[in-house]
Amino acid sequence: MTSADPVALAEALIRCPSVTPDEAGALAFCEKVLAEAGFATERVTFSTPGTPDVENLYARCGTGAPYLLFAGHTDVVPPGDAGRWRHDPFSGTIEDGVLYGRGACDMKGGVAAMLAAAIRFVMANPGFGGSIGFLLTGDEEGPAVNGTVKLLEWAKARGERFDHCILGEPTNPKHLGDMIKIGRRGSLTGHLTVHGRQGHVAYPHLADNPVHGMVRLISALLAEPLDAGTAHFAPSNLEMTTFDVGNPASNVIPAEARATFNIRFNDTWLPATLAAEIERRLAAAAGNAVRYEVAFAPTNATAFVTEPGDFVTLVQDAVEAHTGRRPALSTTGGTSDARFIKDHCPVIEYGLVGETMHQVDECARVSDIEALTAIYETVLGRYFMPS
Amino acid sequence: MTSADPVALAEALIRCPSVTPDEAGALAFCEKVLAEAGFATERVTFSTPGTPDVENLYARCGTGAPYLLFAGHTDVVPPGDAGRWRHDPFSGTIEDGVLYGRGACDMKGGVAAMLAAAIRFVMANPGFGGSIGFLLTGDEEGPAVNGTVKLLEWAKARGERFDHCILGEPTNPKHLGDMIKIGRRGSLTGHLTVHGRQGHVAYPHLADNPVHGMVRLISALLAEPLDAGTAHFAPSNLEMTTFDVGNPASNVIPAEARATFNIRFNDTWLPATLAAEIERRLAAAAGNAVRYEVAFAPTNATAFVTEPGDFVTLVQDAVEAHTGRRPALSTTGGTSDARFIKDHCPVIEYGLVGETMHQVDECARVSDIEALTAIYETVLGRYFMPS
Ligand SMILES: [Zn+2]
Ligand SMILES: [Zn+2]
Repeated sequence: MTSADPVALAEALIRCPSVTPDEAGALAFCEKVLAEAGFATERVTFSTPGTPDVENLYARCGTGAPYLLFAGHTDVVPPGDAGRWRHDPFSGTIEDGVLYGRGACDMKGGVAAMLAAAIRFVMANPGFGGSIGFLLTGDEEGPAVNGTVKLLEWAKARGERFDHCILGEPTNPKHLGDMIKIGRRGSLTGHLTVHGRQGHVAYPHLADNPVHGMVRLISALLAEPLDAGTAHFAPSNLEMTTFDVGNPASNVIPAEARATFNIRFNDTWLPATLAAEIERRLAAAAGNAVRYEVAFAPTNATAFVTEPGDFVTLVQDAVEAHTGRRPALSTTGGTSDARFIKDHCPVIEYGLVGETMHQVDECARVSDIEALTAIYETVLGRYFMPS
Repeated sequence: MTSADPVALAEALIRCPSVTPDEAGALAFCEKVLAEAGFATERVTFSTPGTPDVENLYARCGTGAPYLLFAGHTDVVPPGDAGRWRHDPFSGTIEDGVLYGRGACDMKGGVAAMLAAAIRFVMANPGFGGSIGFLLTGDEEGPAVNGTVKLLEWAKARGERFDHCILGEPTNPKHLGDMIKIGRRGSLTGHLTVHGRQGHVAYPHLADNPVHGMVRLISALLAEPLDAGTAHFAPSNLEMTTFDVGNPASNVIPAEARATFNIRFNDTWLPATLAAEIERRLAAAAGNAVRYEVAFAPTNATAFVTEPGDFVTLVQDAVEAHTGRRPALSTTGGTSDARFIKDHCPVIEYGLVGETMHQVDECARVSDIEALTAIYETVLGRYFMPS
């Protein structure tokens, strides 16, 4: 195996059963490969009282500017019932040009492509003058508390300053040239409680039905769009995720109803301004008729966007050069560690096709892993040696 | 103890711990008292496979017409934590003119008043010419399957034909002269299920949120009154009794939502016509957007009314004669065994003050038990010997 072969690297990574928070040799393998290619590496462990330690890896080659950072994670979600998989989820088996295994696309395949591209580049251009770094965590699929967010703070405290970052999450819906993510929506979760007064259904005037009150509040939350979308974002969207009463007696009006909602919001809002808008809508709908409380879960997921410009165009051009497709610039989907990186430098996300991520028979086309490596290598070339 | 003393009878009945379905000597006591006064008595036991046997008592004095039936139950709801009671719930203790104990008002006090009134009447008027009967069950507070409904069928099969019935449930909200019940609303329970499609909150277009669908259906059910009420009934009323999803993940749109409603309905509706109206409203609200099912629980609680007329007036007059108050004619409150009796003869309900029924420290004023006995006795006198 040569460390410039991304498919061999991906197979080796998949064979480490690194289900969050187990490192399972995946970061050690990356460290070895990078060190052999001349990167200075450092393993950093973070923990929170009562939770398992999380391992992370920081690596840098070069000391000059500009500094381009690759970011990613080597942890994976559990495989579920391994018997439902075509191949053992940690075997890294290639069949008909497709690499199967947990993490194949999310995102050991992407990490392998980054590693191979960077190693090829520094081997071919030993005096490139800038810096290439890796920020790899073992806590992206878990609580995301002891991973990227702390590793960034740790690097900043050491004086590390990044100019741009590429996060290798699987951003393409179907084909390798589909989509670059230039931002992400924020996420805000709220818990609603409506207090009623218990009673017998035959005497509703002596009771106060909290289910009716909750339906009124939810109807008000869903009645009007939160916004019409912005330049780079779709409209913000609210989903009720649960509604629970738990009253088994069909002749009893219950005392209380609870519900939870989650909002994926765009750059119209900050978490605090969005919470205030929700509180305004609830208060208007409740009037004096519904006694309720709303509590918002703490969130570090604020909407952000890396405005299109030279760097975004550079990546777009590189993708088009290898795929023949000009990737869309998107802010769709869930949250990612980019929400932490954006506080340190401009960040875009680009990786493999994510169609099978988190599913049984997660996989990546071998040709996609090779093409992604070539794309990253082109990015490095144009970034450090503009023509 | 004389069997014409209703307070002594009530004390004796309360001392039988006849929590449904235990007879606990209560029906045997009634049978003995009635037999000693010359009633022909019969104990009838009904059972359903898999449930405990339920005992019932039928008694009749006289063979002629008209036939006035007293109906009631000797079973009681559980006392709950006996330590929270002022007196042992089965001690039948009198303190400051108030008789305490489980069943004091619902409805051992009422049964005692019926027994004493009937015994006084037949003792005083041995050749009264008509018939007085008792239909007492031990299954009113329970499933009500092996009690009044079967005992009525049993009596009908024997050729018994009743002209009028008084059910001695506690019908008065605060004072003995408050209220006669001349009918009851029906009860219909429906279970709603909305089928959605599970998904991630970040990709709502790939999912279908059943909580939103359910809120839409419930809003439609609550939007318009079911009716405006009728001559003897308040408007029909729908209450949502539960709404359950049970989704703990605030980033997941759930697959299914369930809710239950109960309607207390007036004589605008039959269960089948009401169910059809609900189905019509649901279908209109759902359109093609909400996939749902509604299932109605079987019900034998149809709305009914005993139209005001000579018999109702006779009872009203008797109440007024002893209390100085003309009782209102009402159809409020929950269901009762009157819903079964109405298929056999006109039925009204009148008994003690129900303020403490089913509660800790259930009680009845001694003076009320005595006055109720006098009222029933007056009813018997005017019924069999109109002036
Ligand atoms: Zn990932
Ligand atoms: Zn009762």
